[in-house]
Amino acid sequence: MHQLVLIRHGESTWNLENRFTGWTDVPLTATGVSQAKEAGRLLKEAGMEFDVAYTSVLQRAIWTLWHCLDNMERTWLPVINDWRLNERHYGALQGLNKTDMAKQYGEQQVLTWRRSYDTPPPALEASDARSERGDLRYAKLGAEQIPLTECLKDTVARVLPLWNQTLAPAIKSGQRIVIAAHGNSIRALVKHLDGISDEAIVGVNIPNGIPLVYELDAELRPISKRYLGDAEAAAKAAAAVASQGKA
Amino acid sequence: MHQLVLIRHGESTWNLENRFTGWTDVPLTATGVSQAKEAGRLLKEAGMEFDVAYTSVLQRAIWTLWHCLDNMERTWLPVINDWRLNERHYGALQGLNKTDMAKQYGEQQVLTWRRSYDTPPPALEASDARSERGDLRYAKLGAEQIPLTECLKDTVARVLPLWNQTLAPAIKSGQRIVIAAHGNSIRALVKHLDGISDEAIVGVNIPNGIPLVYELDAELRPISKRYLGDAEAAAKAAAAVASQGKA
Repeated sequence: MHQLVLIRHGESTWNLENRFTGWTDVPLTATGVSQAKEAGRLLKEAGMEFDVAYTSVLQRAIWTLWHCLDNMERTWLPVINDWRLNERHYGALQGLNKTDMAKQYGEQQVLTWRRSYDTPPPALEASDARSERGDLRYAKLGAEQIPLTECLKDTVARVLPLWNQTLAPAIKSGQRIVIAAHGNSIRALVKHLDGISDEAIVGVNIPNGIPLVYELDAELRPISKRYLGDAEAAAKAAAAVASQGKA
Repeated sequence: MHQLVLIRHGESTWNLENRFTGWTDVPLTATGVSQAKEAGRLLKEAGMEFDVAYTSVLQRAIWTLWHCLDNMERTWLPVINDWRLNERHYGALQGLNKTDMAKQYGEQQVLTWRRSYDTPPPALEASDARSERGDLRYAKLGAEQIPLTECLKDTVARVLPLWNQTLAPAIKSGQRIVIAAHGNSIRALVKHLDGISDEAIVGVNIPNGIPLVYELDAELRPISKRYLGDAEAAAKAAAAVASQGKA
């Protein structure tokens, strides 16, 4: 039997300001730091041990992992940063307020942009100052690998190769892995692990900063799945994520 | 021409309490956190870029690196933790107060333990609760690789293989490396780079949290060497390190 733990980063400044974030590299709020530390406390309390940690190249996930490892007294664990764990790219919506957009385009349009499986938001222009092309952390990628917008299907398409080539073989070989990532890169993993349909994934929301623990069989099929800590708090936090696009 | 940056961790709780630390995994003080952030600010101001960061498996060096990378907006850089960058093991002195020891054994004896190249402090018993044998982070090492005490010569003997096998080839291949480590693992590197004799290394002290920048030629011989920031402050901080063993 194998184990996999997924943690969405704690609250970021743009979560707090209700803005579309995507690949924009915003920091955690003080609340986000507390959530990250609490996640570490819960993992330690549950006696969880890891061999390696994965995270994205965005500081809100990286700092979440660092605080988590610190509270577990495991700062020395190897950490691998992979851009394929980044949040879904939010295209031309990055930086804009979710409520403003709902007022301007209607809640239904915003829900489509936020949760449709295969409709991406309007794309950034490559020349837009908000584009990540030119950012040093992506220097080894071809320009065409750096998205200008993504729907969840696009995110799945970049997360799954990481899963298939790296994460799944490592887990099968006995490595205990924790992944600190983002709402949509985690939804991509959850969709794959739980075999959720393109339609049903729309209703799946991942709360900030609460460790999600999978037990997997030898073929990495889920045996069990649970949030650590207070189940009601986790459900409430997930519902809050779902309601962010209301006008 | 190549570049290498070495940073000794910021002040730890046991630096503040003037205790021998060695492999004991104590945290940074608030001052230590400030020093680490300032180191990051100086590196950013100097326009330094890195391809990879190395640190030990001790949290005071790891957190120094993390704060540093954060202030450089480079949290996403790959970080490699290697036990061979750990502080010199201080044997049975770990946890004891430097001034108390100077009163009990004399300043000369403490200076010998602190700075003699080849006289190690009294060894820990393997059964001592302070021994790191059994610590998960060293699980892949044979028990005989986990020291019970070390003189600087012993530290050099474990740091140099890392230098020769990993760091030097990486630097020669063009990788820009920053190393956040400890007083004695950095002295081991400095001794090697600058060709300092076993006798002269006794007088070399590394200040906490001030980036030391080497420019190296193709054969990794130093062309220049400087501390970033206020040179006088660096000299004063190094002198403070030298005086820690006074009664």
